[in-house]
Amino acid sequence: MSLLFKHLRAHQVFGANTDVGKTIITTALVRASARSTNVHYLKPVSTGPLDDADDKHIKRYAGSRRVQADCLFRYDDPVSPHLAAQLSQRPSTPSDETLVNTIANYIRRSAAASQGAHMYIETAGGVHSPTLSGTTQAEAYRALFLPTVLIGDSRLGGISTTITAYEALLLRGYIIDAVLLFRDAYYRNSEYLTPYFAEKGVWVGTFDPPPPKAANDQENFAITEKYYDRIVLPRNGNQGKDAVDSVLHAVDHLDKCHAARLAELESMPRRTLDTVWWPFVQHGLVKGETNVTVIDSAYSDFFSVYKPSPSPSASPQDASLLTPQFDSSASWWTQTFGHAYTPLTLAAARAAGRYGHVMFPQATHLPALRLCEGLVQGPGRGWAKRAFISDNGSTGMEVALKMALRAFTRRVRADREGKERLGVLGLTGSYHGDTIGAMDACEADGVYTCEWHDAKGVWLEPPTVAIRQGEVYISLPPALHPEEGRVDVRADSLQRVYDVQGRLDSSLARLYRGYVEGVLKGLEERRRGGDVSVPRLAALVLEPLVMGAGGMRFVDPLFQRVMVDVVRSGKEELGLVPGKGGEDDWRGLPVIYDEVFVGLYRLGLESAGPLLGAYPDIGVNAKVLTGGLVPLAVTLAKQGIFEAFWGSGKESALLHGHSYSAHAVGCEVAVEALKEIQRMRGSGTWKEARERWEVGPTEDEGKSVWSFWDPDFVKAVSCAKGVEEVMTLGCVLAIKVKDDAGGYTSHSANKTFASLKDILRGENTISAAPGGAPYEVHYRTLGNVAYFMTSLNTKPEVIRSVEDRIWRVLEQSG
Amino acid sequence: MSLLFKHLRAHQVFGANTDVGKTIITTALVRASARSTNVHYLKPVSTGPLDDADDKHIKRYAGSRRVQADCLFRYDDPVSPHLAAQLSQRPSTPSDETLVNTIANYIRRSAAASQGAHMYIETAGGVHSPTLSGTTQAEAYRALFLPTVLIGDSRLGGISTTITAYEALLLRGYIIDAVLLFRDAYYRNSEYLTPYFAEKGVWVGTFDPPPPKAANDQENFAITEKYYDRIVLPRNGNQGKDAVDSVLHAVDHLDKCHAARLAELESMPRRTLDTVWWPFVQHGLVKGETNVTVIDSAYSDFFSVYKPSPSPSASPQDASLLTPQFDSSASWWTQTFGHAYTPLTLAAARAAGRYGHVMFPQATHLPALRLCEGLVQGPGRGWAKRAFISDNGSTGMEVALKMALRAFTRRVRADREGKERLGVLGLTGSYHGDTIGAMDACEADGVYTCEWHDAKGVWLEPPTVAIRQGEVYISLPPALHPEEGRVDVRADSLQRVYDVQGRLDSSLARLYRGYVEGVLKGLEERRRGGDVSVPRLAALVLEPLVMGAGGMRFVDPLFQRVMVDVVRSGKEELGLVPGKGGEDDWRGLPVIYDEVFVGLYRLGLESAGPLLGAYPDIGVNAKVLTGGLVPLAVTLAKQGIFEAFWGSGKESALLHGHSYSAHAVGCEVAVEALKEIQRMRGSGTWKEARERWEVGPTEDEGKSVWSFWDPDFVKAVSCAKGVEEVMTLGCVLAIKVKDDAGGYTSHSANKTFASLKDILRGENTISAAPGGAPYEVHYRTLGNVAYFMTSLNTKPEVIRSVEDRIWRVLEQSG
Repeated sequence: MSLLFKHLRAHQVFGANTDVGKTIITTALVRASARSTNVHYLKPVSTGPLDDADDKHIKRYAGSRRVQADCLFRYDDPVSPHLAAQLSQRPSTPSDETLVNTIANYIRRSAAASQGAHMYIETAGGVHSPTLSGTTQAEAYRALFLPTVLIGDSRLGGISTTITAYEALLLRGYIIDAVLLFRDAYYRNSEYLTPYFAEKGVWVGTFDPPPPKAANDQENFAITEKYYDRIVLPRNGNQGKDAVDSVLHAVDHLDKCHAARLAELESMPRRTLDTVWWPFVQHGLVKGETNVTVIDSAYSDFFSVYKPSPSPSASPQDASLLTPQFDSSASWWTQTFGHAYTPLTLAAARAAGRYGHVMFPQATHLPALRLCEGLVQGPGRGWAKRAFISDNGSTGMEVALKMALRAFTRRVRADREGKERLGVLGLTGSYHGDTIGAMDACEADGVYTCEWHDAKGVWLEPPTVAIRQGEVYISLPPALHPEEGRVDVRADSLQRVYDVQGRLDSSLARLYRGYVEGVLKGLEERRRGGDVSVPRLAALVLEPLVMGAGGMRFVDPLFQRVMVDVVRSGKEELGLVPGKGGEDDWRGLPVIYDEVFVGLYRLGLESAGPLLGAYPDIGVNAKVLTGGLVPLAVTLAKQGIFEAFWGSGKESALLHGHSYSAHAVGCEVAVEALKEIQRMRGSGTWKEARERWEVGPTEDEGKSVWSFWDPDFVKAVSCAKGVEEVMTLGCVLAIKVKDDAGGYTSHSANKTFASLKDILRGENTISAAPGGAPYEVHYRTLGNVAYFMTSLNTKPEVIRSVEDRIWRVLEQSG
Repeated sequence: MSLLFKHLRAHQVFGANTDVGKTIITTALVRASARSTNVHYLKPVSTGPLDDADDKHIKRYAGSRRVQADCLFRYDDPVSPHLAAQLSQRPSTPSDETLVNTIANYIRRSAAASQGAHMYIETAGGVHSPTLSGTTQAEAYRALFLPTVLIGDSRLGGISTTITAYEALLLRGYIIDAVLLFRDAYYRNSEYLTPYFAEKGVWVGTFDPPPPKAANDQENFAITEKYYDRIVLPRNGNQGKDAVDSVLHAVDHLDKCHAARLAELESMPRRTLDTVWWPFVQHGLVKGETNVTVIDSAYSDFFSVYKPSPSPSASPQDASLLTPQFDSSASWWTQTFGHAYTPLTLAAARAAGRYGHVMFPQATHLPALRLCEGLVQGPGRGWAKRAFISDNGSTGMEVALKMALRAFTRRVRADREGKERLGVLGLTGSYHGDTIGAMDACEADGVYTCEWHDAKGVWLEPPTVAIRQGEVYISLPPALHPEEGRVDVRADSLQRVYDVQGRLDSSLARLYRGYVEGVLKGLEERRRGGDVSVPRLAALVLEPLVMGAGGMRFVDPLFQRVMVDVVRSGKEELGLVPGKGGEDDWRGLPVIYDEVFVGLYRLGLESAGPLLGAYPDIGVNAKVLTGGLVPLAVTLAKQGIFEAFWGSGKESALLHGHSYSAHAVGCEVAVEALKEIQRMRGSGTWKEARERWEVGPTEDEGKSVWSFWDPDFVKAVSCAKGVEEVMTLGCVLAIKVKDDAGGYTSHSANKTFASLKDILRGENTISAAPGGAPYEVHYRTLGNVAYFMTSLNTKPEVIRSVEDRIWRVLEQSG
């Protein structure tokens, strides 16, 4: 990850193209820097014969004492590094990871050895020239996230190559501190580029071009030395169009950029505490600036976080002001491919460039249409006919509720005059978002409440699944066993628990059915008896398999299946509504699956429908939908639900919309995310994870459960002292800490795992974080539950490494 | 705008750099196409001496009968076009508009003259090489939005220049049908690029490189002819790494791309009707495929819309399958700089590349921090201390309501046990979004309702402002004049009406004050008397100046000021709450300004506070906030509101958040939008518009009212037959059509302006749309009100042209 040192100012030098004078200008920078400080010149990868003269020019200026020049990987053929590596026929080509880690180590060592220095890391060719592995440099070096200098192209066509190179860097989020190029009196590119980039806040430095080559090497060397001396000299302000800058000026500018960046990072916690109102944060508990996580950038599964003063125990090599943090809440359950994933960036850019945002009512555009089709044919396969796009999970759920309520009232002439309360049937601990309508579908005594929250419905306490002491248990709440209180039923295996079809005739199924029917019957009797506190049930609303914000509670899937079955029985004495049911219509009550968190493979399943053996009438997807980039939600519906809004007057339409409804950027990113997910499903990592959980390749993907977390690790954690239980599916690992109080406001999980938020130091090995620096784990808790989440493509070595970190903490606290 | 013809397949040819063989490959394409169809070869801009040989090679293949080669702008110097234009010393340089319109005309003429043809439009240099005006080509030609062919670079460094050029095109949304380049046995770029682009769905064609130059022109010509003949020949499938394609294969591929695009566009209405559930649309009223607006792309203030069968009256030159449509709802009031505005695209890309989305609670990142600071110091200047980010206007308002309700209950121990209903004081016709909590702050009898809508509050019918028969009137609703019913008061001018400070002592102010106080007093008496139907008022909620979705009703600003003043009197007998008031705290009731629609210069004002002379305690911005690209909202609050959530327990925090809270893409785009708005405020267009409304440059910008629409036009419209009244401020023009029924479900405005949705044909002039094609106007109505909205940078000639269109319709219908 990104490295930043107070006393080492490091820049990566990219070129607009090959042969634009990258080495010459970098050499000049090195010589100019050497007037005041030590300098490191690093060419990580070099191809072609060595030019001794270059080397001499680099070191000459201030004596080699102050200037150190290094190359890490050297190949003979003067071609692109990926070809040179192939042609070299060496037994192996360094991977991107090796390349990046080697550079990062070089930087860390240099920083440790120096009291103050500049470093220039010169890339090869253009920004997208492939590096050794074949990945383009702009991609491969993104893991380092060093501030950059772009060497512009002063030749014919150079305006274009310079701007396109700039935009390629911008697409990867690079900080671009300067564009430097030669003056060319004929093509005058710098005259064009200087105001062009000034408007973008990027400084352009223009230097005299190098002299023509002399006849012999010696003379050439002398001429070139003179040239370097000349362009490094301070200039008086010649402001005409032929003005050129001194390279000293450029060095000075880069120093200022470095200082400004440090000052800005330093100022951010205070400014944030002064202005920002955070979601879900009690500001009264924020102790001060050190409690603010300053995210300078992010890459893959890691944040790069500013830490102004490394702990005293830090070795000098660990003294980077930026530290990797494993993002183990997947940034509130959104990250799907890790941060700053280029295919999503390109999708966003493509849609922004083609449409911006365009009107959606009665209109269509490809990103929205493809997304709707992709979802109807994806998680909606077999039941959904319509897709309604909104802005986020909460609005998606409000749309779902509006759909269900209308479908219900259109069939059942509910007593609106008498203000009969329509309510939902749900589960205790449910959460559907923070807009008030979505809150109203959750119980009143929950954590997430506000003055206007008016819980409308009935919520049943569900049985849950967890692993304790290496064994899988189903815990039945007291309501199911009134005499015995809570009862734990041991199960053979997770696979067995999630074989819902196979359990339909079990005694538990009968118990569940009797319980749910009994509750509904009792309610209906009271309602008919005139008890106005009982709502008229108008929808069944479930988070299938896992209630996320409610504490990562894994609900016994059989219970949810039974709820759907009971509702769809349509028995009038249970307050249910007759109806066709089936693929196109609802029966009993409209059934809503809130798959905002659980859907689209977060749990290893596209949707819970196939596993439960029961599909919803309305389903909501969000979060993973856009792969972790921008908000978007889609509510899917059966044809019968859609038809409840069919009519001849506008007032009977679904009058819900947002200004940015179906914004092209979100839709295009979602389409790309769905495509990427399909690619990942076939990857070796998935296969390997499934194999560890003994899920064969032939098993029905929609019905088999597995996890990216290692089964032996999970079992071991479940046996650890201090751990009450643990559970995992797909990306999610939830560890419940023993705590008598519990609940959302408990701090016990936070206390147990607090040391994850520190760097694990004192190890000589390279960490699994990009760049190999020791990393922290940024995790979130829900009361006494800590959860850890991977992306769909987190590297197995990263997961193993996080497992190792968790294990050490549990060992220490145990 | 984009041109698309069934029988003319046109491609724009861009180069990865200069000198990559663009002319050679384009010539080969022309010759290959000419084997089967007529071909147009267009070089819009040519610099440097003509090469007769090139010309001959182009025309040779099939005889000049089938191939027409043209150049539109020719300059002598072999430098970048912008320099060549400067050096030519011609009296004027063609603007981008002239260039684009000239090319568009050429294409239209060619399409009209042909029964079938291919066209290749060759650009100069690289994708970002400047064209005559100095704008880069990728930018300037975006208005044409032609599908493109990118000529790749086969030289050393060419992998990088090809990919960077591709990404520059992608950032502008171009359709890239193929990358074509020479095979180079040494650098082997095509070997790298073929799978690279295949993964992105882009086909790469590789051709034999041209032969080395021969000694004399004649021999050279002959060799080159042979070369062209050879590469155009059909090839057998040589699949090895040295495989090259026939140019015929490329032509065939481009034909297929053209056919696929036509087929996809043709299929979109049906597919949309089969899958999409639109917001705010009664699907039962959608007659069929022709009722679906297929937006192929958008640019500036125009959609580019697919029309499968141009009307019979269309001249052959108007037969493009894509038609420009002026987006006069500004895509539901979001467009700020027009569609696909590059600075916003770059901002989105930059943030996606640096962060993706990252966790926000207790964290910070530059885009979010800068946005919060920018708003607190912008519309929040003088009162706001805190910024809370959410996803859209509706969620921003829910956050505002949660803030107000908490602030109220924390000060007033409202009787929660007894479930005392907390309500808002608002205006009849208010709208705050479609999530149920935001709906609950609006009256029950409104248009926007659903089963769970439970209106909580009291709403007053406000006096409104409009221009009738050239005169400005304030209309007082009957409640204000119970004896006389509705009363219209004539005002001297708009400026006078909006001089709120100057009207504070007027008789109307006294009338308003008496009325508001009377209503509140009556309610409070009833409440204290035990009338449970009266809510306890806990907030004042206003859309300042204009109620948008409620029918574009311009409220008398004095009335809103008086409401705030009365509330802030804090009189307990009115049910109001004492308090410090002032800059940091609230008094009376928390006052919320919903500036989602009206804020950030949509009405020419940053915020309504200065004009009203009263700032809110809580304010919400969205829509314009992100310049029309992606959803985002910010709720601003006074310090006293923030402190109502301060405590030592998490349960008292503001428990509202979205997964993508403060997503970096949205925040960065918003920061960029705010910067761009500042730039536009100083532009000549704004100055000119203000002058037309006789608002001098020295007048206080925050308090003076003006419009982008012409005052004489507005006056004339107000006198037109069939028009009841009209009103305008900033970007907004609202025309109320005479209609006895009225209301949201009225179709009268739609009927009056229906012909705007057609092309105005039969004119020889070039239209104001980019590319100059005749355009339609896409407008939205709210019952008997039609509204038209500009961006903040819509060109005056476009506005004049739309005014002209509106005027003609009114003349015809009058």
